Amino acid sequence: MAEGNIVKFSYETLNNLCMDAFEKFGFDRKQAEIITDVLLTSDLYGIQSHGMQRMVRYYKGIQKGTMKVDSKPEIVFETPVSAIVDGHDGMGQLNGHFSMELAIKKAKETGVGIVSCRNSNHYGIAGYYAQMASKQGCLGFSCTNSEAIMVPTFGRKAMIGSNPQAWALPADPYPFFFDCSTTVVTRGKLEMYNKMGKPLPDGWALNKDGNPSNDAADVLANISAHIGGGIMPLGGNTETLGSHKGYGNGMIAEIFASILSGGMTSNKTMKDGKSGICHGFMAINLDCFGGADKVSAHLSQYLKELREAPKAEGHDHIYTHGEKEVVAVARIKKEGIPVIDKTMTEVKDLCDYLGMDFKKYFGDYEPPKAGNMFTGNY
Amino acid sequence: MAEGNIVKFSYETLNNLCMDAFEKFGFDRKQAEIITDVLLTSDLYGIQSHGMQRMVRYYKGIQKGTMKVDSKPEIVFETPVSAIVDGHDGMGQLNGHFSMELAIKKAKETGVGIVSCRNSNHYGIAGYYAQMASKQGCLGFSCTNSEAIMVPTFGRKAMIGSNPQAWALPADPYPFFFDCSTTVVTRGKLEMYNKMGKPLPDGWALNKDGNPSNDAADVLANISAHIGGGIMPLGGNTETLGSHKGYGNGMIAEIFASILSGGMTSNKTMKDGKSGICHGFMAINLDCFGGADKVSAHLSQYLKELREAPKAEGHDHIYTHGEKEVVAVARIKKEGIPVIDKTMTEVKDLCDYLGMDFKKYFGDYEPPKAGNMFTGNY
Repeated sequence: MAEGNIVKFSYETLNNLCMDAFEKFGFDRKQAEIITDVLLTSDLYGIQSHGMQRMVRYYKGIQKGTMKVDSKPEIVFETPVSAIVDGHDGMGQLNGHFSMELAIKKAKETGVGIVSCRNSNHYGIAGYYAQMASKQGCLGFSCTNSEAIMVPTFGRKAMIGSNPQAWALPADPYPFFFDCSTTVVTRGKLEMYNKMGKPLPDGWALNKDGNPSNDAADVLANISAHIGGGIMPLGGNTETLGSHKGYGNGMIAEIFASILSGGMTSNKTMKDGKSGICHGFMAINLDCFGGADKVSAHLSQYLKELREAPKAEGHDHIYTHGEKEVVAVARIKKEGIPVIDKTMTEVKDLCDYLGMDFKKYFGDYEPPKAGNMFTGNY
Repeated sequence: MAEGNIVKFSYETLNNLCMDAFEKFGFDRKQAEIITDVLLTSDLYGIQSHGMQRMVRYYKGIQKGTMKVDSKPEIVFETPVSAIVDGHDGMGQLNGHFSMELAIKKAKETGVGIVSCRNSNHYGIAGYYAQMASKQGCLGFSCTNSEAIMVPTFGRKAMIGSNPQAWALPADPYPFFFDCSTTVVTRGKLEMYNKMGKPLPDGWALNKDGNPSNDAADVLANISAHIGGGIMPLGGNTETLGSHKGYGNGMIAEIFASILSGGMTSNKTMKDGKSGICHGFMAINLDCFGGADKVSAHLSQYLKELREAPKAEGHDHIYTHGEKEVVAVARIKKEGIPVIDKTMTEVKDLCDYLGMDFKKYFGDYEPPKAGNMFTGNY
């Protein structure tokens, strides 16, 4: 995400833009609000790769028919504590929001709600959904599979997605919020190194023969052409550093997402114009364990002890999970959301195509050059 | 575990020994069966560090009063889908077995059972309990905290346990079974390198200042003296390789074990003659997702595709989680359970102390030298 110049716009400006654009795409106001909130929450956390820069990609998905604007998530199997949802190729954010709302509703009624959703699309940051639950006094969990990018230990072909797992639990002063891929890094990081022309750090990626590689361009080309290679699990590619553990954690996300729902496993997704991405959701009502206040107070104390623990030489801060996001939101709301100017060129094209007035949102700002989003490679 | 000579004994021999010894310790037959089964299952999986060699350590815990023979686990809070169990300083295996049986009972009645247990002791392999649930048609989960051994990212003091997470789900021909610490390796691995006098691999351990160390003896001494250092999270000690991810996964085990139960967090355990170890358990009835047969068939197909995927150069096998254990059980049942002769010296001492006839179990086998378990450093 380091290519090009960064411009900053207020949350309100980008919120207005996204809302109008998603309504033009054909979503109703409530749907546009959900999709926009998922995207801009990611931008506020400083995770641009999953933020509004994806808007154009989503529009391409809609154009191709991979993402269906008019589909509705359907509960195809249900018990008081669980459900299987068929996303019918709708937007990942809408399927995700629907499924987690269902899980929370069940958690309020029975104590626990577990929902597995199939036939969906990229749903943004997994943590958004986990936080929906934690804001309602639950321990929230969400995970998703994705296009295969993780090479299993001793393999040379990507068979598992980046398969993030996210957990959230209320705590003070920072909510506990842990959202991470089960690969050592995401594809976005490789793309960033490629754009910068820098060699990849050791321990990230494999070439088409399954050997370690520092060549971002080669690895990315091989992944796109499905000729082998990919990203290592958390723990690298040897059992010495725990490769089998990252691989196993990726499997857990796969189980909650595609296995429980009867959906497509990562290695089958994103083929022949079909996404097939699956998600998993769990909400555990903290009343099941004496109440959110009690649980949260106990956790907050431990998090405080962690932050106050002795630091390694050369370091002055131990972060607890969720702390960085709180700091980022405060800073970015004040300074504005950073957007790469290349993305703004895409936004200009999108406005032109949708008949929206780019100046209405961005005044006299001019993106670097005119492009055409329909010929670009998104 | 590489120190000394290895001797092998049949499962039946060691089962008889453990059963008799635990009954002599004061447990009833059913309790002795549970503890013995947890230990010998670990030995059959080839995980000696958590197997019958721990018997003497457990006896020391009983002697010191850290482990109470006559205590019973108590349900102190309960809902139809959840419970908090107080282990009252009893044996970890008995608290673990009780808690997972409770979780499974709830899962049969409501679909899900989540149990968090406090004031317990070392419970052996986390995977044993996850498998109790998978054998009953559930997705099983178990985790535990432990004495602090993991140094959080950018810290120099161990604040989190090895905090394993284990998951199990029925599948053919190998059940899915994933059991791993959230540290890059366990303390047992460091002890093994120390005994062999070999330098630790890079990426495992930190010295007392929080800098990487290859000196097993120094790291172990610092840990024991609580003067800093410890083992890195899965992902090492830099964010580049995902240290914050291993650290976060350790936190999830902590949440299910000590936070939900209101028990001791890892950094407070094993002090002043009190263990305080906590465990977490979850059973999700697969009837919640269309039935165990359907879920298992889908998972089995994916696991097959993983095993059959192209291999990295120099490798001819991609393992799926649980496969190695099935192979190990078949081999070890045939060849016998390997035991280090030093452990057999301890066993001889224990037999003498308990008034058990060592020869009844081991015939003419003589352990290398007479010792005295009550003066040794266990």
